[in-house]
Order: sequence, then structure tokens, then C-alpha cells
Amino acid sequence: MSRRKRSHESRGTPNRPRFWGKHAVSAALDNPDRKVLRAWATRDAASFMQFPKDVAVTLAEAPDLGRLVPSDAPHQGVVIEVEPLEEVWIDDLLTEAPERAVLLVLDQVTDPHNVGAILRSAAAFGAIGIVTQDRHSPPESGVVAKAASGALERVRWTRVVNLARALDDIGEAGFWRIGLTGDADTDLKDALGPPRVAMVLGAEGAGMRPNTREHCDALARLPISDSVESLNVSNAAAVALYAASVG
Amino acid sequence: MSRRKRSHESRGTPNRPRFWGKHAVSAALDNPDRKVLRAWATRDAASFMQFPKDVAVTLAEAPDLGRLVPSDAPHQGVVIEVEPLEEVWIDDLLTEAPERAVLLVLDQVTDPHNVGAILRSAAAFGAIGIVTQDRHSPPESGVVAKAASGALERVRWTRVVNLARALDDIGEAGFWRIGLTGDADTDLKDALGPPRVAMVLGAEGAGMRPNTREHCDALARLPISDSVESLNVSNAAAVALYAASVG
Repeated sequence: MSRRKRSHESRGTPNRPRFWGKHAVSAALDNPDRKVLRAWATRDAASFMQFPKDVAVTLAEAPDLGRLVPSDAPHQGVVIEVEPLEEVWIDDLLTEAPERAVLLVLDQVTDPHNVGAILRSAAAFGAIGIVTQDRHSPPESGVVAKAASGALERVRWTRVVNLARALDDIGEAGFWRIGLTGDADTDLKDALGPPRVAMVLGAEGAGMRPNTREHCDALARLPISDSVESLNVSNAAAVALYAASVG
Repeated sequence: MSRRKRSHESRGTPNRPRFWGKHAVSAALDNPDRKVLRAWATRDAASFMQFPKDVAVTLAEAPDLGRLVPSDAPHQGVVIEVEPLEEVWIDDLLTEAPERAVLLVLDQVTDPHNVGAILRSAAAFGAIGIVTQDRHSPPESGVVAKAASGALERVRWTRVVNLARALDDIGEAGFWRIGLTGDADTDLKDALGPPRVAMVLGAEGAGMRPNTREHCDALARLPISDSVESLNVSNAAAVALYAASVG
């Protein structure tokens, strides 16, 4: 590889993350709001990926692509460098919410695999978006995009400075705010009902912060065995989204 | 570190895997069927972990522990080297199943994070066990144990040579075998009902193999948006287990 290409081997930055894998990349290319700065692909991948004309594609061998991404990242022959999406403002998210709507609020869920999988489940169950706190959530990254399997491009993701204030706004917009916690007395399915629901999940282990709990209208638990402390947070989110979707 | 210790820096093998993290390690120490060969701990972790008297514990600094496990593994100050659990035979699993029972069958789910998270959800929702095909599933490992958060010690995991033959046995034991696939016409909740249920999940992307599908009594789908191809397989398993638990 040339010296020029080697200078790109930083594996992306928060301002210019790199995405890899067919699903994540093709969803980014299909998203009119996503600015794709450049692309690398194997000859094979380049033949079936639909690259827009204005994206510069560098043909490369698979091992060279491997050096553009974290080690062992399953790039499937294609890597792109992008700009993060424009911010989604909480006011816009709430104003544009339909009569029936499910929203996820994540309190300090920092693992990018989990946040990506949660975006994927949010898309699958038709949630209108996710809300995270800016300082305690991962930036857009290849890991998030890969785990989201395209959903990073489709689910609105609002980052806020102050989660408690955002929960105030969410409540004022008519969302019933349910905090999910293992120590609640109510089962989630009994806490559901209002047409607009915001479900709040905390980090594994620590759970929701006290100030986050206090900003919920109800606390509820998933019906799991007492022998298990909690589910993986993305698994808990998927179950909660399913429960809300079946009513 | 001494030369002797350095010889242990292989990060474990399938025959002598290393587990790390408080939940995974304390569950292994609590499991009478788990043979723990040796342990390393920081002074801090050693003070609150309950090491049995017959386990040799080497005190070490956190960076030294880091060299015993894969890079970036969140060891939380404690690492153990163990023997894999004794095999669980499918006949035993089926003979000992209660009247009402849920079983998960995984067809070529190879990612250890996913299998670990599935074990965790299986424990959470009281599944009697999981069945995988020996050649296409991960061995016991630190990654599986960490993702399972203790459930590797509690959920019976049967590895079989031939998954189709195992599905025959499962059917003969009175389990209603539901294959989960996005192209099914029936919603999972409408396919549930019989008191003994085996839910079969395939790998993401490829899905169940044709011969696996043919060994199911019914095919069913999770009620997800057409815009999303599938859920992460551990998320799908969690939703399916929840759906089966609420009936």
C-alpha cells in the first residue's frame, strides 16, 4: 500500500468513523442523510455493492481492508469512511411522534455492541427512536453500525446533555415513562397501556441512576427468575420492545 | 512475573479455558460440578471472592491478570483456569424434563458472545437447557462464560453430533418443535401452546439449514418490521423465551 493510504490506517475517528460489513455499508449508502467520504472494497464486493457515482472507491485486497478496521472486524470486503449523522433534536423527535409510539431511553449504556443491537431491535419493533446521554454513550462507530446491521441509518438517535431534563420533556409530550429495574414489583406487561410509552433502561450492574428512576412514571420488571440478576441490556431491550408491541 | 507464570500466558485452551469477571468466576466457584484448576486475583478481589480452600490462588496486579486473558477482557481482578463441565447427554436432558418445559436448539450459532447471552436468557426464563451441534458451536471459553454472567454453570448445555437426529429425539420426548424463521406465516405466539416446546434458531444470515427446518413441527416468526431482516440471534432468543414464558 502507498504511504498515502497508510496514513488512513487510523481505523477511523469519532468525527470520521469507518463502517464495515455489507449490511452496515449498504444501509449507509442508501441513506440520503449520510455523507460517505470514501470507500474501499475488494473487487468481488465492489461488483455487487451499489456505490453512488460521487463516492471514490479504492479497490483493495481483503488483508489491506483488514488493516483499515479493528483487528478481527468482519469487514466482508467493504469499508467506508463517513461523517456522523446530523443531530436529532429531542423536540423534533417528540413533536413528530405519532399517536401510538414507543421510545427507548438508555441511561449510561456504554457498550457499542449493545447500543448497536438495541438500534437493530428498535428498528425491528418500530420504535420511533432512542435517547442517550451525550457523555455516557458511544459515538457512532463501526462497531455500533455493524451490530445495528443497518438500523443506525433508520432509527432516530437523540443525544441529550441532561437525561433528567429530557425525561421531563418526554413526559410533557404525553409519554408514559416506564423504568425497567429488577427490584420493581410490577411486571412490564401490567405497566404498559398508554399509547405513548418511553421505556428506560440502565447500565447492567449499576442500573438506572436514582435521578433517572425519579423521573419515571412507573417502575417495572421483566418476568425473569430470581436466580438471575438481569438480562444482557440489549436482550432486555428486545424483550421490552416485543412486550410493548404485543400490548 | 516469573518464567513459570509466563508459561501460563496462553490465555487458556478449549481443554483448560480461563474465565474472568466476578459473575462468571463466582458462579464457577459455586458450582460443585466445576473443577477449578487454579486462580489469579488482585489483593482486592481476593478479599471478597470466596475461593474454596483447595484452589491455589496467585495474587497478582491487574496488568498481570490482563496478560492471562484476551486483550481488553474486563477481568475485574479475577481469573480462573478450569476444566470444561462434564457432557450432558440428550437422553438425560429429555428424560429429566418436567411436564412444562422450554428447550432451545441452536443451529450453527457460532459467536461465543451470542451463545453466552443466550445461556443467560435461558437461565432468566427458566429454559431446561440448550442443544447445539458439536462441530458448529463454540467450546466453553472465557467469552462464553462472561457473556453468560454465571448461567454457563446453571443451564444444561447438550452438544450433539447430529442435530437432525437430536430433533427426532426431542420430538419423540413430546416437545413441539418450532423453527424460528423470518419467512414463516405464523406468529410465534400463535404457534405456542403445547406444554413442552423446543424453539430452534439458526445462524444470523444463513438461518436454519433445510434439514433442520424439516425436523420442526411448525415454523414461526417474530412480529418484526419487514424493513429489518432479522434480530441479533441472542435478542431473538430472549424474545422467544419471553413469549414462551408468558404463554
